[in-house]
Amino acid sequence: MRIFGGIESGGTKWDCAIGTGPDDVRTAATVPTTTPEETIGRVVDFFEREGPVDALGIGSFGPIDARVGSPTWGFVTTTPKPGWSNTDVGQEIQRRLGVPVAFDTDVNAAALGEHRWGAGCGLSSLWYVTVGTGIGGGAIVDGRLLHGLSHPEFGHLRVPHDRRADPFAGLCPFHGDCLEGLASGTALEARWGVPATELGDDAAWALEARYLALGFVAVVAVLSPERIVVGGGVGRRAGLLMLVRRELSALMNGYLGFELPDDYITAPALGARSGVLGAFALAATASAPM
Amino acid sequence: MRIFGGIESGGTKWDCAIGTGPDDVRTAATVPTTTPEETIGRVVDFFEREGPVDALGIGSFGPIDARVGSPTWGFVTTTPKPGWSNTDVGQEIQRRLGVPVAFDTDVNAAALGEHRWGAGCGLSSLWYVTVGTGIGGGAIVDGRLLHGLSHPEFGHLRVPHDRRADPFAGLCPFHGDCLEGLASGTALEARWGVPATELGDDAAWALEARYLALGFVAVVAVLSPERIVVGGGVGRRAGLLMLVRRELSALMNGYLGFELPDDYITAPALGARSGVLGAFALAATASAPM
Repeated sequence: MRIFGGIESGGTKWDCAIGTGPDDVRTAATVPTTTPEETIGRVVDFFEREGPVDALGIGSFGPIDARVGSPTWGFVTTTPKPGWSNTDVGQEIQRRLGVPVAFDTDVNAAALGEHRWGAGCGLSSLWYVTVGTGIGGGAIVDGRLLHGLSHPEFGHLRVPHDRRADPFAGLCPFHGDCLEGLASGTALEARWGVPATELGDDAAWALEARYLALGFVAVVAVLSPERIVVGGGVGRRAGLLMLVRRELSALMNGYLGFELPDDYITAPALGARSGVLGAFALAATASAPM
Repeated sequence: MRIFGGIESGGTKWDCAIGTGPDDVRTAATVPTTTPEETIGRVVDFFEREGPVDALGIGSFGPIDARVGSPTWGFVTTTPKPGWSNTDVGQEIQRRLGVPVAFDTDVNAAALGEHRWGAGCGLSSLWYVTVGTGIGGGAIVDGRLLHGLSHPEFGHLRVPHDRRADPFAGLCPFHGDCLEGLASGTALEARWGVPATELGDDAAWALEARYLALGFVAVVAVLSPERIVVGGGVGRRAGLLMLVRRELSALMNGYLGFELPDDYITAPALGARSGVLGAFALAATASAPM
């Protein structure tokens, strides 16, 4: 049996694990995100010390270049995160560990994890969205990860923004009031002056649910997945998904000719481990180093 | 070689053809959309007179029930078109002609036609959108038609709507100012007082391009297709696609890390025949009558 390494790399920390699936995680570690050199160095140390692994999957924060064969495959590209713009992650780790590496977005890894072992088991399609510091989405279609021209950039969708009801301008450096600019954890904290975890105001959460539901209207309108799985720190807020389901149903207004199932919008069954476990499943698809 | 029947059914006319592909259309006819009984009767007459065919594909206006095995498979469901709500089309035609029938949306048929023989040849993914009386979209992913919980309902996406710049309220009976409610040919005529074909005002077309580009941001954000093919009467407007490309590029604002290709948004290579020819390709997937 092949042993996989999994990495979910984020803007604040990198989760690393070695194993074969949710019931067989042999060792795990978390490395804080500092400079690329230091962070990647520590991650490589972990796998050299705890390995070997037969293949490695990386679910990365983005945007990234996941186009196999591209000269910048494995790079984090235009991220606003200081020091990380146009940074080689996948090629560097592949070179230093000398094992096949599969490189995809964090949300694609999580979508794969939830489809393989979690809330999407047995479904042919699902949409995974994380609502945390940022907002991102990934999809399974016909049982496989969706790839196209690039990868989905769900956070950068435009949604209706009533500036009288919500004068907050949005904080995406590229787009201002895109979905991420209005509804990410960062946006919540900037708008309300308290971290999302401490935000108690019902009206604030009703507005958040409204924006997420507007985003999910786009997911249903374009992709029509069988289920939407919502992860991330903000997504875990108690009661939020019920509000979002209600808003989505109101926004669809019966147009589909049937009601969306009660569990259409649901929490990840793997909790916060969807990404790093999904990275195991990614690793299984990795081809040998070039 | 199997001979296929193809139908593209629309709110104003049904295009019917018999053949095997774009270079082998043996006979074709157009039937005006009147009552279901009369329209379906004339269509069945055509295939009885000009056939036989080995299988039939129907690309239908919607929304529809395309879920194989559903009791209402083959039905047009909640359409606002008078007399056509909850109407059996696919089962009725299958029963009367006694051949295998594949039933899908008009835009899915067109997407299939463009992928097989048109602007999407050789691509792994594409998005087909029609902008005419209504607005609808369909997708090819990994070379296959996208199906999920239901089918895409692109027209019912919500886009930012600045009521000061555009006080038109939108005319979708379900959603008011969804994309279709703001940017369909019907909406253009209601807003500007002249049919879209006679509309010459540059500002009107700039607004139209803006709305379509906002819709395409959602397509890129959720599905990231390799190409977007725009059909339909409004979509054919000279110069419109160039305006939409420019708006889309401005809205993405460099976030993808690369520019969208110049031909990213393009006209259908099969012209107005994408749907009826795609219905041949649909027919090839039909299974025997139940």
